[in-house]
Amino acid sequence: MRFSKKILSCELSPMRKFHPLAVKAEEAGKKIYHLNIGQPDIETPKAFFDAVRNFDSSVLAYCPSGGMLDLIHAVQGYYEKLNVHLKEEEIEATTGGSEALSMVMNCILDDGDEILVPEPFYPNYATFVNVTGGHIRPIPTTPEEGYHYADRERIEPLINEHTRAILITNPGNPTGSVLTREEMRLLADIAKEHDLVLVSDEVYREFVYETEELSTMLQFEDVADRVVVVDSVSKRFSACGARVGLVISRNLELMNQAMKLCQSRLCSATLDQVGAAALYSVDSTYFHAVRDEYRRRRDVVVEGLRKIPGVLCECPKGAFYLMAKLPIDNADKFQKWLLNDFEYEGGTVMFAPGESFYGTPGKGCDEVRMAYVICQEDLKKAMKILDAAIRTYPGRTIQ
Amino acid sequence: MRFSKKILSCELSPMRKFHPLAVKAEEAGKKIYHLNIGQPDIETPKAFFDAVRNFDSSVLAYCPSGGMLDLIHAVQGYYEKLNVHLKEEEIEATTGGSEALSMVMNCILDDGDEILVPEPFYPNYATFVNVTGGHIRPIPTTPEEGYHYADRERIEPLINEHTRAILITNPGNPTGSVLTREEMRLLADIAKEHDLVLVSDEVYREFVYETEELSTMLQFEDVADRVVVVDSVSKRFSACGARVGLVISRNLELMNQAMKLCQSRLCSATLDQVGAAALYSVDSTYFHAVRDEYRRRRDVVVEGLRKIPGVLCECPKGAFYLMAKLPIDNADKFQKWLLNDFEYEGGTVMFAPGESFYGTPGKGCDEVRMAYVICQEDLKKAMKILDAAIRTYPGRTIQ
Repeated sequence: MRFSKKILSCELSPMRKFHPLAVKAEEAGKKIYHLNIGQPDIETPKAFFDAVRNFDSSVLAYCPSGGMLDLIHAVQGYYEKLNVHLKEEEIEATTGGSEALSMVMNCILDDGDEILVPEPFYPNYATFVNVTGGHIRPIPTTPEEGYHYADRERIEPLINEHTRAILITNPGNPTGSVLTREEMRLLADIAKEHDLVLVSDEVYREFVYETEELSTMLQFEDVADRVVVVDSVSKRFSACGARVGLVISRNLELMNQAMKLCQSRLCSATLDQVGAAALYSVDSTYFHAVRDEYRRRRDVVVEGLRKIPGVLCECPKGAFYLMAKLPIDNADKFQKWLLNDFEYEGGTVMFAPGESFYGTPGKGCDEVRMAYVICQEDLKKAMKILDAAIRTYPGRTIQ
Repeated sequence: MRFSKKILSCELSPMRKFHPLAVKAEEAGKKIYHLNIGQPDIETPKAFFDAVRNFDSSVLAYCPSGGMLDLIHAVQGYYEKLNVHLKEEEIEATTGGSEALSMVMNCILDDGDEILVPEPFYPNYATFVNVTGGHIRPIPTTPEEGYHYADRERIEPLINEHTRAILITNPGNPTGSVLTREEMRLLADIAKEHDLVLVSDEVYREFVYETEELSTMLQFEDVADRVVVVDSVSKRFSACGARVGLVISRNLELMNQAMKLCQSRLCSATLDQVGAAALYSVDSTYFHAVRDEYRRRRDVVVEGLRKIPGVLCECPKGAFYLMAKLPIDNADKFQKWLLNDFEYEGGTVMFAPGESFYGTPGKGCDEVRMAYVICQEDLKKAMKILDAAIRTYPGRTIQ
C-alpha cells in the first residue's frame, strides 16, 4: 500500500515512543515516575459526573454540529468574566483542543503555505500542519534566553510570501512561558502589519502562577477579525478523557468554513458536552486550589533541578510543563538508559525527550520536557533519581 | 482572511441547509415530518448508560490513543462471530465513523489523487476527500437501474494513473443497496488487479432485510492487505451521540500510519468508549427487534411511494435510507416550497435533496434521500403529505 506524502511526513508521539521499554522496566520491578505525559492526577470536578449520570434521555442522539447550546452558553458566560462578549456563532465546540487546531489548520493552510511557531512547540502541531500540506517555520529560541520569542527582530525576518499565520501557545507547552500584555500586543501588531492569522492556543489559561488576571488574545479588539482562539476543557478541569474543545473567533467567515468540518463529522460527543457545560459552573475556589497545588509542584521541581550541577532551567510562569537542558549527550539515549540500565532506590524517571519539540533539525537533543502533574512527594523522588542518574550516566557532559 | 482552496471546495451539509426554513415553518404551527436526517428514534440499549453511570474513577483520564482495551476486545469478539479473527493492533477506535474515514483518506490520498465512489454517495465523503487535496471520481448509476454499480464495465474505464482507492458503503447510504457476495468478490478482484485500496464503510452492517447473514469485506482473505473497513457504534446501537468508530485493517503499515493521527488527537472520548464496550454485550434479540422495526418502516415508505404517480424508487435491501426520483422540476425548490408554501392536515415533510449526493454536476436534481427513522404512523402521514404535495406543486412534471 502506498501512503500519502503528508502522512509519511508525520511522526508517532514522542511522549509515547518509550512505552514498550517502560513496560519492560515495570515488569522488572522498577517504579517509574512519569513526567512524560500531561495527564494530571487532580480529580475531575464532581459536577461533570453528576451531569452525565443525570442525563435522562433514552436515545443518545446527535447534538448540533457546532456544539450543544448549554455548552455554548456556559462558554459565553465564562468569557464575559474576561470582558470578552461572544455571540453564539463565534464559538464552535470540537472534539478536544486537538480537533479545534486541526480544523483551523485545514481552513487556512494549503500546500506550501507556512505557519510560524515558536520552538520548542507541542509536537502534535506538526501533524495538524503537515496533513494540510503546509509547513511549520520555527521561531528559534534558546534555553539560555528562557525560550523567549516575542521579539519583532526575531519574528519579522521569518515572514515571507508563503506565511499565512502565527501559532502560539500561551501559557506555553512545553516551556511554561507566559506572555506579558506587551508581548501579546506586539504579536497582534505583527499579525496585523503582515496580514497574518493569529492562532492562540490558550488551553492552559488558568495555570498562571504570578498573577490572578486571566488573559486572552480575544481581548485585542482591533485584531478581532484575524484572531482564532483554541480552547479546551481537558486541562482546565482535569478532564482529559472528555474530548471537548473550542474554536473561537469573531471572524464569522472563518467560523462558517470551520462549520463545514463540524458538520462533516456530525457532532462531537453528546455526553462529554453535557458534562463540560456543567464544569463551567465550578467556581474560582476550585481554580485557586488547583493553581496553588501546581505552583507548589513547580517549586519542588525547579528547586530539585537547580541543585543538580549542569542543569539549565527557567522557572516556568504557567501551564504545568518545563523544558530543562541537561548535561548529557542525548536525551533519547539517556531515556533508554534510564529505563533499561538504571535505578535508584527501586525507581526511575520518564521525560519527553526534547528533539521532537523542535522544528529545526539537531536542536533540543540535550533537553527534556517535564510535566509536573504528579504529587509533590513523587516529584521530590523523581528529582533525586535524576540527580543520581546524571552523576552515573556514561554520556554525561560534565564530571 | 484568506481560506485554503481545500476548505473552499467543501460544502455545508445538505441535510442541514433547510434548518432555518424549518424553524420558521414550525413557528408558523406546521408539524414537520423529518425524513432528512439519519437520527433514529430507537432507544439506545440500557447497557451503555449503565456502564457510563458505573464509571467510578475520580479522574476522567485519557485512554490509549488507539482505543480502550475493553472496547478493542469487545470488537474482536464481535468479529469472531463473522469468522474474522482480528489482532488488537488491527483495530483502532476513532471518534465516530467520520474520523475513521477522515484518517483513512489522510493516510492514502495526496493532492491530485483520485478515489472512486459510486454515486449517489454520502455527501460528507466529499469533505473528507477534498481536505486531503484528492478528488472523488464518481461511479455513475441511475435510479432506473436501481443505483447498481458493481460492474466491471462500469468501474474499470474510470481507473487511471491517479486512482488510489475505491470507497464503497455497504449497506448503502443513501440508496439502501446491499452488495451480493459475488459483487463483493468482484470489487475485491478489481482492487487487486489495479493495485487499489478498498475502503468499505460498513456502519449499517446489521440493517439488512433479506438475509440473516452478516458480511464484511474483511472476509476476503486474499485482499486482506488492501482492505480497510470503517465501522461505528452510532447506527448499530442507535447511539449516534456516542462518537465511537473504528478503523480496521490487516495492513499493519496502514494501521501504523493511522496511529500517527490517533496519537496526534491523544484519544477519543473515554466515557463513550466505556459505554461502547458495554454495547457489544447486547445480544442478537436486540438486532432482530430493531431490524424488524426498520423493515416494517421501509415497507410503509415503499408502499406509500409506489402509490404516488410518477415516483420511481427501488425497494432498499439495507440501511434505513432510500433514494426516490420524484416527478418534480427540482428537489431544492420543492423542499423550499414544502416548508414555506404548503401544508396538508397541518403538516409538511423534509427530505435531503438529491443533488449533493452526486459528484457529477446536474445529476440528482429530481431525487431525494429519505431516512425512515421515525415511527410507522408518522411515516404513513409523511407519505400522504408527499402525495398531496406532488399533486399541488407548481413545478410537478406530470399532470
